[in-house]
Amino acid sequence: MKNTEEMDDRLRRQLEFALEIDKEKNVFRQTHLSDHGRNENDAEHAWHMAVMAYLLREYANESVDISKVMLMCLIHDVVEIDAGDTYCYDEDGLKTQQERENAAKERLYSILPEDQKEELILIFDEFEANETAEAKYAHAMDNLQPLILNHSNGGSDWKEHGVSAEQVYGRQSKTKLGSEKLFEYTDEIIKEHIKKGDIR
Amino acid sequence: MKNTEEMDDRLRRQLEFALEIDKEKNVFRQTHLSDHGRNENDAEHAWHMAVMAYLLREYANESVDISKVMLMCLIHDVVEIDAGDTYCYDEDGLKTQQERENAAKERLYSILPEDQKEELILIFDEFEANETAEAKYAHAMDNLQPLILNHSNGGSDWKEHGVSAEQVYGRQSKTKLGSEKLFEYTDEIIKEHIKKGDIR
Repeated sequence: MKNTEEMDDRLRRQLEFALEIDKEKNVFRQTHLSDHGRNENDAEHAWHMAVMAYLLREYANESVDISKVMLMCLIHDVVEIDAGDTYCYDEDGLKTQQERENAAKERLYSILPEDQKEELILIFDEFEANETAEAKYAHAMDNLQPLILNHSNGGSDWKEHGVSAEQVYGRQSKTKLGSEKLFEYTDEIIKEHIKKGDIR
Repeated sequence: MKNTEEMDDRLRRQLEFALEIDKEKNVFRQTHLSDHGRNENDAEHAWHMAVMAYLLREYANESVDISKVMLMCLIHDVVEIDAGDTYCYDEDGLKTQQERENAAKERLYSILPEDQKEELILIFDEFEANETAEAKYAHAMDNLQPLILNHSNGGSDWKEHGVSAEQVYGRQSKTKLGSEKLFEYTDEIIKEHIKKGDIR
């Protein structure tokens, strides 16, 4: 059992981290909310992904620990508080993304007690490596969530950025690794938007 | 094994629900983001609560199924898409809250396949009843999350609404049911703000 002073320092760090991640609500993405709404922020995106992950878990290619997937979805963008959002089709941004995110990871998770720092970095690294069933399924959500919003808005995010079919498929290939069934659905949507000229 | 047509209708309903809950990002609360930011919305609040629930689970009075708590946090405000946010110190709003939320619950969860409608309503009702360890701990998060934001802003949300000590303690008594340790912390914060005159 920890003594009170240790306990209080632990709680202080946990609450400091809880307050720090509030900033994720100010990191805006290229995706727009449905009904042609404003740009979405990272916290909203993470929330949406986690709920979708739970509801759609039956479509994961492999059986997943859904609690871990939800946590992965919830924290996968915390590093963007420092590193900023890198649009998935921004070639220059993608080159420096890893370096920026590594520095952010170290600073942000160091606010937490050591054991929780290690635990959350492991989960984040697992997501990034995209090798486990949980990471692959979480990536499927990371792709599907903005796709349903963009589709509901007539593909306006693709049009705005002049995104090509090659780029979209490059990204959505990750969906297939996590869920063949959901990839089938996204594939139909993409084909529809290519046909309409929303995707180059 | 379901046939393809059934499967597709199921997925269609799940994705329709996923799109519908996007609207939760437009339901704004009385709480303001840290650094005297804008009002927070329900999706951001739910995300923040779920992450905090995971990080602080060691302080729950009773051992909790953290996966269930996280899901509870994530979906507890979906009904506000139709019912709107009821400020916790709005006496008139609180009188009609249950009726409005029941109608919303029925409409929104009916978009989902029947089994998932039942499952999510059970989780929501469990949260509302506040009797299980998971519900009590989730309520502690529902109170603690806005408190840390409000505290970081010098208690400005309490000041703006002229909230009294009696009202704050009425609400925070629920925190104690979920976590004695976190209630101790909130109690210190509340006393500090009463002393400063931020709380009547």
